Amino acid sequence: MPRRGIFKKMGRSNWRALIIAGGSGTRFWPKSRRSRPKQLLPITGPESMIRQTFLRLKGLVPPAQVWVVSGADHVASIRKQIPELPKSQVVGEPCGRNTAPCVALAAFLMRREPEAVMLVLPADHLIRSRRQFQRSLRIGADLAVRHKALVTFGIEPTFAATGYGYLELERNDPEIRGGVSCHRLRRFVEKPDRAAAERYLASGDFLWNSGMFVWKVGTILENFERHMPEIYRRLARVDWDHPRTASRQLRRLYPSLEATSVDFGIMEKADNLYAVRATFDWSDVGSWDAVAPFLEEDPAGNASRGRLIAVDSERLLVDAGPKLVAAVGVKDLIIIDTGDALLVCDKARAQDVKKVVDRLKAEGLSRYL
Amino acid sequence: MPRRGIFKKMGRSNWRALIIAGGSGTRFWPKSRRSRPKQLLPITGPESMIRQTFLRLKGLVPPAQVWVVSGADHVASIRKQIPELPKSQVVGEPCGRNTAPCVALAAFLMRREPEAVMLVLPADHLIRSRRQFQRSLRIGADLAVRHKALVTFGIEPTFAATGYGYLELERNDPEIRGGVSCHRLRRFVEKPDRAAAERYLASGDFLWNSGMFVWKVGTILENFERHMPEIYRRLARVDWDHPRTASRQLRRLYPSLEATSVDFGIMEKADNLYAVRATFDWSDVGSWDAVAPFLEEDPAGNASRGRLIAVDSERLLVDAGPKLVAAVGVKDLIIIDTGDALLVCDKARAQDVKKVVDRLKAEGLSRYL
Repeated sequence: MPRRGIFKKMGRSNWRALIIAGGSGTRFWPKSRRSRPKQLLPITGPESMIRQTFLRLKGLVPPAQVWVVSGADHVASIRKQIPELPKSQVVGEPCGRNTAPCVALAAFLMRREPEAVMLVLPADHLIRSRRQFQRSLRIGADLAVRHKALVTFGIEPTFAATGYGYLELERNDPEIRGGVSCHRLRRFVEKPDRAAAERYLASGDFLWNSGMFVWKVGTILENFERHMPEIYRRLARVDWDHPRTASRQLRRLYPSLEATSVDFGIMEKADNLYAVRATFDWSDVGSWDAVAPFLEEDPAGNASRGRLIAVDSERLLVDAGPKLVAAVGVKDLIIIDTGDALLVCDKARAQDVKKVVDRLKAEGLSRYL
Repeated sequence: MPRRGIFKKMGRSNWRALIIAGGSGTRFWPKSRRSRPKQLLPITGPESMIRQTFLRLKGLVPPAQVWVVSGADHVASIRKQIPELPKSQVVGEPCGRNTAPCVALAAFLMRREPEAVMLVLPADHLIRSRRQFQRSLRIGADLAVRHKALVTFGIEPTFAATGYGYLELERNDPEIRGGVSCHRLRRFVEKPDRAAAERYLASGDFLWNSGMFVWKVGTILENFERHMPEIYRRLARVDWDHPRTASRQLRRLYPSLEATSVDFGIMEKADNLYAVRATFDWSDVGSWDAVAPFLEEDPAGNASRGRLIAVDSERLLVDAGPKLVAAVGVKDLIIIDTGDALLVCDKARAQDVKKVVDRLKAEGLSRYL
């Protein structure tokens, strides 16, 4: 049990959450399409990833204090998938500008409570241990409040990944709170090459950057003012008290904001950074091969969401809706059927599903995009 | 050009054809089902195999002289697929009894013209060179008439097949007619083991038994009387002049007829056998892997009947209707989609598709059978 005593200072109503739902997820074709990107799909279970992200906050952040920022095209779907949210809190970006403008926009929407704790969560990560997760969030929030810090959540690396950014920890002893290690951060590191990733893994001083953050609303606004003054200045001029006016102003100014990540724009420049070492399970479910561990497997390692007849077939990942799938003498395949399209892919080549999307674009087959 | 002079004796109206449409074709699951066996499916092109078989007789046997014998369940489909046929000439067997009763039944239906030439053709073989095929049929028919012989068509073996019966030829020189070799037959040989098949292939004295025959109606009836007297006797008692009565009688007696092949029941016992060495292309299209050669291939050897996006993928056979199929990093697969079911099978394991059907039976998934 977490020692709740240490969080006394923060009332429940003090939490705010931003769920960032911007990705397009071409690596989940044919399930993911322009109109239904990965975060809107039930890839790892019966609920969509964004709804799972929302439900993961249950008991910590009330729905009235959760904002979602997504592409304008997806606002209607998200409102449908999370009917608990006030409609006005699902905000469509006029265009995608990476995460920094998105975080700034949300911080301005929350500006009236500068002491409130603001969580930032990607919509398309998978974490199953909700209790452990919320415990880490509480500990992170406590750090953010006590130290006026920018706090990130770091994942213990399990291999020399080149697809993630890294967090380099200060070498002094971490503060242990409720069994969770809280580190001062030396720096944010962008996606490394293979050799650097091997070094990071071996050193023990690095964690993967999960892209999840917690800070006070006031702290992040101050950091924008300091490190991304142009974005801050433009958003500060929006008439936030009049939503319609604000919406019109945003449509005009948003495309001119610098398209950069909050990691690069803020975290790589700011001081007073902390990392909470995650004690919860985590996956960014980056491609189809990452899905199998979240589904039930038969003794031959076949993971299927529907009915599979496997004859001498092993380690398949199958998602074909209500369709019966039969496999004979095949191994390590991803088999995904969506009615209008079918993917058969070697598991080791899951990253190359985006090449299919590229080919569809090149051949003008836009109805499959 | 065939030397038509030699066929002068046979008027065109003297031809009769029996198309045997009895197979179930479990190896073509999921396309083949109980209700639509292989011969009713357009597996190798836009026309079903049985319709291709019918069209292959064009100019040789008029539709009014073609009979089809099939399972009772398939009569309606066959009448639809070959509307040129008089309805009464698509005959449903009360139950499957292998080919001997089926051939005897058809011979009795043709009994009024004992001098007519009767072709027997499986419904599910693929032959593309119609002209060469008809030329061989004419030469076979001429042999059948001149020698009162039972004539079969032999296929030059291309490998030591253990899945076909063989025809052992007499070693004396064949008669060459119109460029086609006509051999006296020493004997019919059942499916051999691997070692025997190797010997047959090496000897040069063996052909594959195609299961296609030609003989006079009178000759085959005499052979039934002599070699399968029980079947002959029972069918001879049917009141053939009154179709309704005949139909009722057949329903009663057919199940009691010996279920055996015409090869075993007649050909292995009869004298005066000939084989025409086929000069036409031939495939019994026994399983999915046999289909690819009949479809167009891309430079990577992928044969698809629909739209295929192949990324680093080779030698696929794809049939998924109007569905877009994308393959990434896969080779030598059979990918068949039918809307309700999907098969992904290693090409080398095509024979084992029937194991899927066995599993479906065992698991009571009869809607997929």
